[in-house]
Amino acid sequence: MTDDLREQVHAAARRARVAADDLVLATRERKDAALHEMAAALRARAPEVLEANAKDIEAGRAAGLSEGLLDRLALTEKRIDGVAKGLETVAGLADPVGEVLRGSILPNGLELRQVRVPMGVVGMVYEARPNVTVDAAGLALKSGNAALLRGSSSAEHSNTALVAILRDALEAAGLPADAVQLLPCHDRASVTHLITARGLVDLVIPRGGAGLIDAVVRQATVPTIETGVGNCHVYVDATADLDMAETIVLNSKTRRTSVCNAAESLLVHAAIADEFVPRITAALRDHEVTVHGDETFARQEGVVAATDDDWDTEYLSLDIAARVVDSLDEAVRHIAEHGSGHTEAIVTSDVAAARRFTARVDAAAVMVNASTAFTDGGEFGMGAEIGISTQKLHARGPMGLAELTSSKWVAWGEGHVRPSS
Amino acid sequence: MTDDLREQVHAAARRARVAADDLVLATRERKDAALHEMAAALRARAPEVLEANAKDIEAGRAAGLSEGLLDRLALTEKRIDGVAKGLETVAGLADPVGEVLRGSILPNGLELRQVRVPMGVVGMVYEARPNVTVDAAGLALKSGNAALLRGSSSAEHSNTALVAILRDALEAAGLPADAVQLLPCHDRASVTHLITARGLVDLVIPRGGAGLIDAVVRQATVPTIETGVGNCHVYVDATADLDMAETIVLNSKTRRTSVCNAAESLLVHAAIADEFVPRITAALRDHEVTVHGDETFARQEGVVAATDDDWDTEYLSLDIAARVVDSLDEAVRHIAEHGSGHTEAIVTSDVAAARRFTARVDAAAVMVNASTAFTDGGEFGMGAEIGISTQKLHARGPMGLAELTSSKWVAWGEGHVRPSS
Repeated sequence: MTDDLREQVHAAARRARVAADDLVLATRERKDAALHEMAAALRARAPEVLEANAKDIEAGRAAGLSEGLLDRLALTEKRIDGVAKGLETVAGLADPVGEVLRGSILPNGLELRQVRVPMGVVGMVYEARPNVTVDAAGLALKSGNAALLRGSSSAEHSNTALVAILRDALEAAGLPADAVQLLPCHDRASVTHLITARGLVDLVIPRGGAGLIDAVVRQATVPTIETGVGNCHVYVDATADLDMAETIVLNSKTRRTSVCNAAESLLVHAAIADEFVPRITAALRDHEVTVHGDETFARQEGVVAATDDDWDTEYLSLDIAARVVDSLDEAVRHIAEHGSGHTEAIVTSDVAAARRFTARVDAAAVMVNASTAFTDGGEFGMGAEIGISTQKLHARGPMGLAELTSSKWVAWGEGHVRPSS
Repeated sequence: MTDDLREQVHAAARRARVAADDLVLATRERKDAALHEMAAALRARAPEVLEANAKDIEAGRAAGLSEGLLDRLALTEKRIDGVAKGLETVAGLADPVGEVLRGSILPNGLELRQVRVPMGVVGMVYEARPNVTVDAAGLALKSGNAALLRGSSSAEHSNTALVAILRDALEAAGLPADAVQLLPCHDRASVTHLITARGLVDLVIPRGGAGLIDAVVRQATVPTIETGVGNCHVYVDATADLDMAETIVLNSKTRRTSVCNAAESLLVHAAIADEFVPRITAALRDHEVTVHGDETFARQEGVVAATDDDWDTEYLSLDIAARVVDSLDEAVRHIAEHGSGHTEAIVTSDVAAARRFTARVDAAAVMVNASTAFTDGGEFGMGAEIGISTQKLHARGPMGLAELTSSKWVAWGEGHVRPSS
């Protein structure tokens, strides 16, 4: 049975490879036409998606899923239109494939260029939301990759309906249906088979909680990109404008609590603690945020004493860990020890402090006098985002189309040979 | 004992992390001064290096190492001067750290830049040649990384002497000695501890045979870059200029047989087989190359009948596998099945064939009417090379200083917060 599943995943990967070989030759015109075809088909066939989604919602309710999860799972006519619009946006973005990254004519006359090429076969492992199915398929297609999608079993009916529509649209546009495939989702082992299909799969991107991502990264023999775990800090420096600091802390923490760019920890320089600690604690309380504080913070009303775990916790809720530090360097050390390499912010008026913080903090994004909430592909002008990488290899921060590509050196000569050295 | 070794490797990695935190702030001026200091110290202290090297050579001879391996192991005053010159060349290269890769002012006024930053702690696992110790240390330093070097036990005395000199020079230049450390080399387990030191080590680059690289990639939980396995093909198309084809095949095969960019397989279009097969077979024979051929080639004098294994073999010797293909697409399929993603060449007069081959062949480098031997950091103008990546993630092809870096997004604002959406 497990061997069957392995063969099922590998067979899908082999079909994806054949499709990827076709996609390498697909022009932007053909890919964009397919994206528009996919968008139109989703709108036209929305009723069958909604019918399938109703089955998932019913099953989810019977299985006791929380209202929050049911909401993430639910599709509506409007949400379907939203993902269709997303495909049209991707069609409007420049094609990353073929972009010349570097190029020159070598002293011997050889014409050398490094060009972007598709990665090949890209696997995505993700959780409940069915809109990710469409987003991932669209971004993969535009960047010339075949997609193997491993969604959540709780969205199985929705994903099956969506992928059937996307595949029909691909064929209608003259591209291989196998450029988008849904993998079996009932057994965790299908993830294992995907991330160990070395030679068949070029890249796997897990999107989900820390547990999923850690398991994938540890077991994988296929290259992976870690995404989306954010223990983000806001550090309020000695010279901070305290009005600005309050605004940035509140926005970073409360704009949306369930996203990876939300702040989870607050560090305050000792020199301003007397004034700022009471003030920010009150402001956070007004916004229904529970502060898990160190000794200084714990003297304020309503603050819960922090435990060691708090400094490492990605709450994704109206909670924040908070402590006082004696210096910028202590803040940097705290972030080095507890941060997840996602987004770190400093609020300061001091140029030297800002320069030191941005240079020393090792994270995908560092904000000076700005909210952590800006770390986002859309905000960064990428037009679309497949996730936010917290690793250092290949892609770091928001991943758009370019991050789904590799490169290739191409040299044109006229009989060039290399002399012996 | 094994636990001791693990702790030894981890302790070195923690010291490297501290050093890396310093290197992040090191200006190009300081790094270049250290590189010149290292070069001068190597020349000044050449006698102690030669003395240590003599011990390695003696031990190697006693252990029955081949003359080839002994030659790779041997240092001379001239070779030491060569590696010192290499350090000076690296000092002359632009600093990759701080390069702005992308940047703009967002519509809301936030100033956003993506800048190159050091990777952090980089591990290198490599075989006999002690010059790699110096090359790797120099490239790591220039790109702001701390290096953990795991060389061969057969070069232990040489590497120990070299690293002691490099560390003294670092300190003399005001940089941390722990930016360059040598790991224990007697137990294979030190490699295992290095490649599983997740969170302590940012990147490991194995340089060596396919066995080493495969083992590292399979066991590693730390990100790795596969390097240097080359089953490179030359495909001679129907429209090839046969004089040019002969020159390119001979150069690709015989210029240096022991390097990863040497050709190991020859594919000939059926339309020119009658003329070209006898001709190239004779030319290869004149250069003492043994041809392992398919049926058509095997009819020629001196050709050995190829077995299935030949198509997948990186000979690194005066041997070449050779077959006739019916079309360019068959050549592409053969390369997809047997190639290692290193370098593939086509010889053709036909623009459409060249375009199709370069688009469809999935390799780090594709040559049109040029020798496979050009895939090299020096030839590509990188100034120096740490290896040739055959993977698609992060770096592909020759790896110079830029490939030893990651990136970071830095945004400067004046109290910017993100509106609710």
